[in-house]
Amino acid sequence: MKIRVVIPSITKEFEAMGLEQYSPGARPDTEISVTLLDRGPASIESRYEETIAVPDIVSKIVEAEKDGVDAVIVDCMAEPGVQAAREMVSIPVIGTAETAMHVASMLGHRFSVITVLDRAIPRFERHGPRTGLSRQIASLRAVNIPVLEMDDTKRLVKALTEQSAMAVREDGAHVIVFGCTGMAGMAQAVEEGLKQQGISGVPVIDPAILAVKVAEALADIGLSHSKRTYPKPPEKEIVAY
Amino acid sequence: MKIRVVIPSITKEFEAMGLEQYSPGARPDTEISVTLLDRGPASIESRYEETIAVPDIVSKIVEAEKDGVDAVIVDCMAEPGVQAAREMVSIPVIGTAETAMHVASMLGHRFSVITVLDRAIPRFERHGPRTGLSRQIASLRAVNIPVLEMDDTKRLVKALTEQSAMAVREDGAHVIVFGCTGMAGMAQAVEEGLKQQGISGVPVIDPAILAVKVAEALADIGLSHSKRTYPKPPEKEIVAY
Amino acid sequence: MKIRVVIPSITKEFEAMGLEQYSPGARPDTEISVTLLDRGPASIESRYEETIAVPDIVSKIVEAEKDGVDAVIVDCMAEPGVQAAREMVSIPVIGTAETAMHVASMLGHRFSVITVLDRAIPRFERHGPRTGLSRQIASLRAVNIPVLEMDDTKRLVKALTEQSAMAVREDGAHVIVFGCTGMAGMAQAVEEGLKQQGISGVPVIDPAILAVKVAEALADIGLSHSKRTYPKPPEKEIVAY
Amino acid sequence: MKIRVVIPSITKEFEAMGLEQYSPGARPDTEISVTLLDRGPASIESRYEETIAVPDIVSKIVEAEKDGVDAVIVDCMAEPGVQAAREMVSIPVIGTAETAMHVASMLGHRFSVITVLDRAIPRFERHGPRTGLSRQIASLRAVNIPVLEMDDTKRLVKALTEQSAMAVREDGAHVIVFGCTGMAGMAQAVEEGLKQQGISGVPVIDPAILAVKVAEALADIGLSHSKRTYPKPPEKEIVAY
Amino acid sequence: MKIRVVIPSITKEFEAMGLEQYSPGARPDTEISVTLLDRGPASIESRYEETIAVPDIVSKIVEAEKDGVDAVIVDCMAEPGVQAAREMVSIPVIGTAETAMHVASMLGHRFSVITVLDRAIPRFERHGPRTGLSRQIASLRAVNIPVLEMDDTKRLVKALTEQSAMAVREDGAHVIVFGCTGMAGMAQAVEEGLKQQGISGVPVIDPAILAVKVAEALADIGLSHSKRTYPKPPEKEIVAY
Amino acid sequence: MKIRVVIPSITKEFEAMGLEQYSPGARPDTEISVTLLDRGPASIESRYEETIAVPDIVSKIVEAEKDGVDAVIVDCMAEPGVQAAREMVSIPVIGTAETAMHVASMLGHRFSVITVLDRAIPRFERHGPRTGLSRQIASLRAVNIPVLEMDDTKRLVKALTEQSAMAVREDGAHVIVFGCTGMAGMAQAVEEGLKQQGISGVPVIDPAILAVKVAEALADIGLSHSKRTYPKPPEKEIVAY
Repeated sequence: MKIRVVIPSITKEFEAMGLEQYSPGARPDTEISVTLLDRGPASIESRYEETIAVPDIVSKIVEAEKDGVDAVIVDCMAEPGVQAAREMVSIPVIGTAETAMHVASMLGHRFSVITVLDRAIPRFERHGPRTGLSRQIASLRAVNIPVLEMDDTKRLVKALTEQSAMAVREDGAHVIVFGCTGMAGMAQAVEEGLKQQGISGVPVIDPAILAVKVAEALADIGLSHSKRTYPKPPEKEIVAY
Repeated sequence: MKIRVVIPSITKEFEAMGLEQYSPGARPDTEISVTLLDRGPASIESRYEETIAVPDIVSKIVEAEKDGVDAVIVDCMAEPGVQAAREMVSIPVIGTAETAMHVASMLGHRFSVITVLDRAIPRFERHGPRTGLSRQIASLRAVNIPVLEMDDTKRLVKALTEQSAMAVREDGAHVIVFGCTGMAGMAQAVEEGLKQQGISGVPVIDPAILAVKVAEALADIGLSHSKRTYPKPPEKEIVAY
Repeated sequence: MKIRVVIPSITKEFEAMGLEQYSPGARPDTEISVTLLDRGPASIESRYEETIAVPDIVSKIVEAEKDGVDAVIVDCMAEPGVQAAREMVSIPVIGTAETAMHVASMLGHRFSVITVLDRAIPRFERHGPRTGLSRQIASLRAVNIPVLEMDDTKRLVKALTEQSAMAVREDGAHVIVFGCTGMAGMAQAVEEGLKQQGISGVPVIDPAILAVKVAEALADIGLSHSKRTYPKPPEKEIVAY
Repeated sequence: MKIRVVIPSITKEFEAMGLEQYSPGARPDTEISVTLLDRGPASIESRYEETIAVPDIVSKIVEAEKDGVDAVIVDCMAEPGVQAAREMVSIPVIGTAETAMHVASMLGHRFSVITVLDRAIPRFERHGPRTGLSRQIASLRAVNIPVLEMDDTKRLVKALTEQSAMAVREDGAHVIVFGCTGMAGMAQAVEEGLKQQGISGVPVIDPAILAVKVAEALADIGLSHSKRTYPKPPEKEIVAY
Repeated sequence: MKIRVVIPSITKEFEAMGLEQYSPGARPDTEISVTLLDRGPASIESRYEETIAVPDIVSKIVEAEKDGVDAVIVDCMAEPGVQAAREMVSIPVIGTAETAMHVASMLGHRFSVITVLDRAIPRFERHGPRTGLSRQIASLRAVNIPVLEMDDTKRLVKALTEQSAMAVREDGAHVIVFGCTGMAGMAQAVEEGLKQQGISGVPVIDPAILAVKVAEALADIGLSHSKRTYPKPPEKEIVAY
Repeated sequence: MKIRVVIPSITKEFEAMGLEQYSPGARPDTEISVTLLDRGPASIESRYEETIAVPDIVSKIVEAEKDGVDAVIVDCMAEPGVQAAREMVSIPVIGTAETAMHVASMLGHRFSVITVLDRAIPRFERHGPRTGLSRQIASLRAVNIPVLEMDDTKRLVKALTEQSAMAVREDGAHVIVFGCTGMAGMAQAVEEGLKQQGISGVPVIDPAILAVKVAEALADIGLSHSKRTYPKPPEKEIVAY
């Protein structure tokens, strides 16, 4: 099983980080590879940056299929380029947000998403109506630590635990979903933190690691996205970038 | 990885069938075991039969957890006892219908469910509002072959293909979901049948096999159902059966 | 008019209590009879206990129809066995929660349900999507007094009034619905209590008594549940309890 | 028990008809009285005619409360003046459409409404979102016989049966609701007609008679509409008609 | 372009006020005329007053069409008589609430409506389900200043700003909609007030002025309401007021 | 008033066509200018082509604001780049699909969209949940004439009329919305065609021309999109195309 993670960023350091984040949950026989963009933004914190990133994201996914990869994950909860790429390839292209939201809906009545910045919340809101899961969302909250400062793990876990506890107590969340793939690897620490606050039995979903598991599951049994929803584009003239 | 399939029936023949149906998609390191009910109906085709089956289904799931099993699947799209059992154990208890419906919603805009008998459709309908996925359901259709006669595989595949083609052409389905775990193993044949009718790129979901994959995925990363949604019952007097 | 109340419990004391609770609103020509379970739990506070209760609940309802009863009420807001029983009989089988929720929706824009324990709330939540009335629910609240200690009427009325006032003031409720049939007989006292807090004109629905009135109304004019929704189960082998 | 039926029409003949239509289901101790409008339209087949009728409908309901009546029914599925009148009185003011729709939703998964004319359907549609029951509506159909020609009972029953059968077979209706109170008294004949076409177990709701039963039920136990939803209007200058 | 504003009131002073309120946003070539009711209430603060106002509102709109007017606006967020009038004329009849709600939905994720009195909120709530925009409503709030005292502009702007700021901060509103046409002309002052509180970029919609702009837009390109939704009433006997 | 139309295409011929299509409905004092893309696809018929077009669409909109334009319209019903551009500018950026859908919802109960190709329908479907107007959509239909062959006006009007008539008769549409801005200028001919088939009073919405009117209306009164929904992106490193 080969899974390719496309990181929608030109920041070189993210390559090693991506490998580290996506590998822990993978099966021993799963080979994770990571690719960055050649052209695009340093990180994605707006719809504008999504538009800058999408052309090369799609290229990298087309390339991944040619490389014989079994499934692709786009490493961003905004899911830039995910739907466009599904038109261009036959392998599954996993959206980290929608996967986490559907699995969260299986595990409990309502989930809260804890994202990075308050300003990311309006952008995240589109996933509710798009997936049809608006009513399963208890709340959207933010730790308010910028993406590029998230390497202070202790601070991040503390803030995630705090917001998760408030989501459970004040918003009625039954499940917690991380709102940024950069939070990968912290689910267990947050579950521990919640227990210390007397909140046990609340699953914490790490969308990066879950995406790998769902990619493995779909690829194993040959399921991919419907060509009725994502038909192959017609051939035509394009002035490329 | 150990997965236990609980078959909500007293029919001895279903034991071997269950093993055969649930094994194909499993990973080499996954051990599937199957258990029947001691008391209950021959098969489940009504809400009434569900009530007869549920006490022993829950017992078998509690037993499975004691046996050290990692996840349990209840082999019936009505999901009898699934939610009750989640209160009693800590391991994931997979509902085959809701898993298939959530994954179908990830793969395309709308799915149709092809079940056994027309009379099963009203019972299946409850899964729409319950999962919040009503709007993703293009249609519910039936092959109208009784559960206990479903061993004529050719006839079943033909009828499934026919209904699936109508679901795509007339109801706008983008994904097909089998409505009975007894249809396990026929997804590929139905996809082939659809292609021969000019319908390609429509994923066909086999809920039995998918349930195994999702059980593996959740158990691998330690995710289970929320105790906020399924709290442990209080201790009290019960006059058992 | 004969109405049978099925109490899903083996607790002998509940028989007299049931008679006392369900009689006040009945018409003079309505004869209320009460039946307990032979096998089942002492009370129902979990989905697990529902599964233990349902086989005998259905038996008691089938028996009621044979006794010439005109309508049956299951004395539990979780409505265990109600839908299964509708498949087995032709008389109306009244669900106390759904009846109260539909009538509350007729009386005002939004209602709040005041139930017994916080842990009952997740179980009650399923009635929202099931009835299609999710958007009419202002909030679900609990008095947090265990079912088996609810005989302290004064304490219960005080707690109900308090929670109802908060539902009106903080959650925007226009109608109050009791969330447990064990609260029967207290609606007037709670309405009085609300008035003393300056909240008048808020109807308080006692689902037990309302169920009797709706049973009378339906039976009077020969309305019962649709056999398209609740078809009669096929005959087959069952290893009974 | 005293129930007043307000007929939103100036047509004298409707008075005797109303009494005949609303009496059959009433309890022996229920006294039905009927009142016409002094000013208004001959019948209501448009929103425009509703506006002409509403001032006097509200007057007649205020008068009914002064007469010591226990509950009022407005004899029109458009429910003209019903919500305004609830602001002005404390007794229940029953809407025939919303009552029928809520009870139909209790009896089965989906209902169809069979109304008089196709042109009435857009007006009826508002009841879906207003009651929150849009998803329970299988279809809206019409017999296409004008209100003022509905006295040919045989023709009407035949047309109602035909449309009801199509609603069940083609639209998936599980329950039938008459869409005009002028169809009162024909439910049994339509149920018979359906049986002759092989459709049994489908309840047919006569909203006029059901309204009487629900009026009796609410008045018996002192339930009326919420003053939070229908607050009493402030005093002010009005140039009356 | 000729636009007629129908003020659903008999209060003479409202005529000049209406002209003043509706003129500012109009194009130079747009001629605004205003008409009061001959019979009706002093102002509309209840459903009851709506019923008193509607017959003459419809008359005035029919008259407007005869006068060669291009579009009509009813000067009340309750939109009394708007739908009935659409049956009687071919020119657009603009509802101020629904226009503001649809435009607010185009401008941001969620809007809050700031109306006059708390007691107006339940009446406003019907617009949510009716327009299908319930989920876009962040909250409904009131300044709690009576309609007939709203001429203290400073007090009103201060209260509107305060409630708008709370709507943004506490309820998550992205857009503000005035809930009463009597607030016309204050949008800019409220936007300024919000900025002084550190809330910038939040559009404030003045439904009166917006209604003029949408009336101009529709009339310019010959769009009016569908006769499928608002069919012309049949001819029949009416005893008028 | 200056309005800029951004045509998401590199096809030179579209420039004159765009000017011709967007000018008819504009006010005499409105100046329409048109701009093509420097880099991008020949036309947009897939999500993939949208990703190719979006970077330059956003650039052209940023440029338009610098040019002192009052509002921008993106000439494509897929609305590529519209939301991203709203983050980058303060002037209104009009989405042709959402504007048409909201106005259609004001004009009647339900609308149908007639688009170009069947394969465009799945892409159009996203606008339903996104705008919250899913339930107002009666159907999505296609004329099945490729974008680049749409210059045969007669054939196109005939096909549009045919599909519109079917939408009204079979799908219950009350309003028709063109699903492609390339159909601009044909609304009147289609309304005529419908009348000849006995269907009158059904508004036909031309989204291109409507977008101009709504742009004029918003710009006139200083309304633009909320910065709470579309916050300004942070400054950061971007490797541009």
